[in-house]
Amino acid sequence: MIPLLVENALVIGMTCPADVTPEGALFVEDGVISALHSEAHARARALERGGELVERLNVEGLWVTPGFVQAHIHLCQTLLRNGPDDLELLPWLRGHVWPGEAAHDEETMEVSARLGLTELLAGGTTALLDMGTVRHTDSIFRVAQEMGIRITSGNALMDDPATNPAELCAPAEEGLAETERLKKRWHGAASGRLRVAWTPRFAPSCTDALLREVGARAKAEGLLVHTHASENRGEVELVRQRTGRSNVGYLADVGIAGPNAVLAHVIHTDEAERELLASRGTAVVHCPTSNLKLSSGICPVPEYLSRGIRVALGADGAPCNDRLDIFSEMRLAALLPKVRLGPAALSAWEVVRMATAGGAETLGLEREIGTLEVGKRADFVLLDPREGFALPTVWRSDPYGPLVYSFDRGHVVATYVDGEARFHRVRRSRQALSPPPEAVDAAVLKLSRKRSLANAPTK
Amino acid sequence: MIPLLVENALVIGMTCPADVTPEGALFVEDGVISALHSEAHARARALERGGELVERLNVEGLWVTPGFVQAHIHLCQTLLRNGPDDLELLPWLRGHVWPGEAAHDEETMEVSARLGLTELLAGGTTALLDMGTVRHTDSIFRVAQEMGIRITSGNALMDDPATNPAELCAPAEEGLAETERLKKRWHGAASGRLRVAWTPRFAPSCTDALLREVGARAKAEGLLVHTHASENRGEVELVRQRTGRSNVGYLADVGIAGPNAVLAHVIHTDEAERELLASRGTAVVHCPTSNLKLSSGICPVPEYLSRGIRVALGADGAPCNDRLDIFSEMRLAALLPKVRLGPAALSAWEVVRMATAGGAETLGLEREIGTLEVGKRADFVLLDPREGFALPTVWRSDPYGPLVYSFDRGHVVATYVDGEARFHRVRRSRQALSPPPEAVDAAVLKLSRKRSLANAPTK
Repeated sequence: MIPLLVENALVIGMTCPADVTPEGALFVEDGVISALHSEAHARARALERGGELVERLNVEGLWVTPGFVQAHIHLCQTLLRNGPDDLELLPWLRGHVWPGEAAHDEETMEVSARLGLTELLAGGTTALLDMGTVRHTDSIFRVAQEMGIRITSGNALMDDPATNPAELCAPAEEGLAETERLKKRWHGAASGRLRVAWTPRFAPSCTDALLREVGARAKAEGLLVHTHASENRGEVELVRQRTGRSNVGYLADVGIAGPNAVLAHVIHTDEAERELLASRGTAVVHCPTSNLKLSSGICPVPEYLSRGIRVALGADGAPCNDRLDIFSEMRLAALLPKVRLGPAALSAWEVVRMATAGGAETLGLEREIGTLEVGKRADFVLLDPREGFALPTVWRSDPYGPLVYSFDRGHVVATYVDGEARFHRVRRSRQALSPPPEAVDAAVLKLSRKRSLANAPTK
Repeated sequence: MIPLLVENALVIGMTCPADVTPEGALFVEDGVISALHSEAHARARALERGGELVERLNVEGLWVTPGFVQAHIHLCQTLLRNGPDDLELLPWLRGHVWPGEAAHDEETMEVSARLGLTELLAGGTTALLDMGTVRHTDSIFRVAQEMGIRITSGNALMDDPATNPAELCAPAEEGLAETERLKKRWHGAASGRLRVAWTPRFAPSCTDALLREVGARAKAEGLLVHTHASENRGEVELVRQRTGRSNVGYLADVGIAGPNAVLAHVIHTDEAERELLASRGTAVVHCPTSNLKLSSGICPVPEYLSRGIRVALGADGAPCNDRLDIFSEMRLAALLPKVRLGPAALSAWEVVRMATAGGAETLGLEREIGTLEVGKRADFVLLDPREGFALPTVWRSDPYGPLVYSFDRGHVVATYVDGEARFHRVRRSRQALSPPPEAVDAAVLKLSRKRSLANAPTK
């Protein structure tokens, strides 16, 4: 791999709000960020003087962020997109999603994964935590390996014949053996980009014995456990009927809690459950579109963050969204708390952090990805603030508001994983009708000089 | 203008939910839809046989909708995009928006309008109701005329020195005279695409005498009155202090009510106000992103619709959104009511209707635009369901869910106003990694045949 210098970018490092470097640079060697900014230039020049090849990518005017992380996705559902609307979780699962998942063979699963991963890469997502269905999870890993994305996935464990459809139910031993087989085959493959997680679907789908076994094995093996919890009031009630416990409490009882546990949704929680999430370090994945579309509720994200509960973002499966787009999720995550808790309930910085460093922590990959720092894997996204309609961006010195509110996935120019471009778009010719960006900047400067605004343009 | 046959499209006519025609056609003569479907083909062939030229546009695989209508936009604010976040309405107006509007000259206003109108056309919006600022409204009309969009706008009336900043305040006579001047110059120009409305900013900005004069003149002249109402609790309280009345009640008292009155936001209303809106036929414009971002509240749209209040959609100004994108507004408008009122609170059909025929009615243009019918102006949008990531769309026979939930503005291929393409994109080459649409369709068919899903693919 030829070393790559990405130069003249606005580098948004995401280690802290002030970590924004105009005309910054990244130097990438063997898929790793080996130097930043002036060090990056120095290192590139040193190699060139020594007679080595260096690729230089001048991205003047573009922004660079860490690759986005989506911590709850169902690639096995992409072909079920644009199914029925206007249903709650349980009838929607039983009528559309579960029969669809049960119908997969290796080939359809491959198309499903490929369609979903293309959308994720094209929208700037470089890492995901995925939930497979009961069978054919090899197809997901095979496509992910080929496409070069960073993925953690596993076969969905659904062993209770009382609650699962017959065609989507596997005995506990079969499910456990399948995860162990996937682990041997895929865990750590593709330079560590592929990883296997324990993936019980949700408490009502699993027997108590299975969940306890999963909790124990995940801890012993150091794997993630990825499941759903407290998405829907009917689901919460079902768990209470089956176990006599709150959902988060029950999962903790069976060993699914702690830094290796990732719970999607977690909308309906009582005080004791929140205390448990915070004290054990269990991660929550907020899926705002899905939660609204299935009428599930709104996850109390600011309340969780303020007590130290870890929160990441995800689009969930295609049929409850019906996009796999981190920009849609960031925007909604930022907007929803304001009407409930006031305009400053959740800042754009906090939202972008959930979608990058927060997601990386949730996946247990905080030492590898999530920020742009020396030693991290070179997973990053090039964004064009002049592409689409985000202009002007000069009223503020930080890029987080524009990223969350005005950008959409149309601004993604290229997506890199381990230093390789896994998506890039042919630059669209700017609309002839649109004023050139320079004219916009000049007009803004004129506005700001004529009258004193509370905030002045930054350049 | 050479007659145009648009053929082989999925034509979404929007007269009723079932008005969807696969392999449909539109025939456009002199900017008007003169025939549909088999009649369109027959008319084109007849002209060709008579030796006349006919342009044929084969849009196989594309969808055609009426042009989208946004009934509340501030083009004068486009250059203020990406300003401060996390503020409520009044401090945000006073600190950022009003000083910015006051700083405009003709030239900066032209850049602002051009930037906004490019974004609107590129996102499929063909008609808008705009609110200018106090001065330089000619620039908006001039750019709109050049770009070919359908616009109703007017100078903002702000005559109360007690509530407006000095640099953005004009005496009542000056504001009234300016609207009359604009009316003479622009109303009905560009084949009727340009229209002037009376545009008092909101009740707290205006004296009682001005509002009464506006109410009377608008009715006498048959013009729209476009204002804000009941967006923010502080604003509602201010109106009560000034007038002793509810906001909607006060506006009705001064003559701003009825089919020619368009009130943006209208979030905080009591029973009497709702009764007044319904009985008078006053239109409400729902701006969901803006309402969340400024922490204003959520407009009770299903409640309004169920009692017959007319509701349209709009993005509001760029700095409280920060997009001017009907797809973002449709999606949010559809999602928000579900969590409050259940999953079937508002159907995707109703949302698309608000963004097309509903918007047309609000602008008083229901006989000209809003649906694809013979005799209507040829304002339409070509959308590619295979562009971006909306596949598959075959689990349902209606297009409304996909339009609202999975499509974004990246799916807009071309936007026509009066039969002329005012935006079109060079087709992006499909990602090499993505499965071809045919492979997706084949896999979906396979899934559906293997197991019986509640809903079967439609093709």
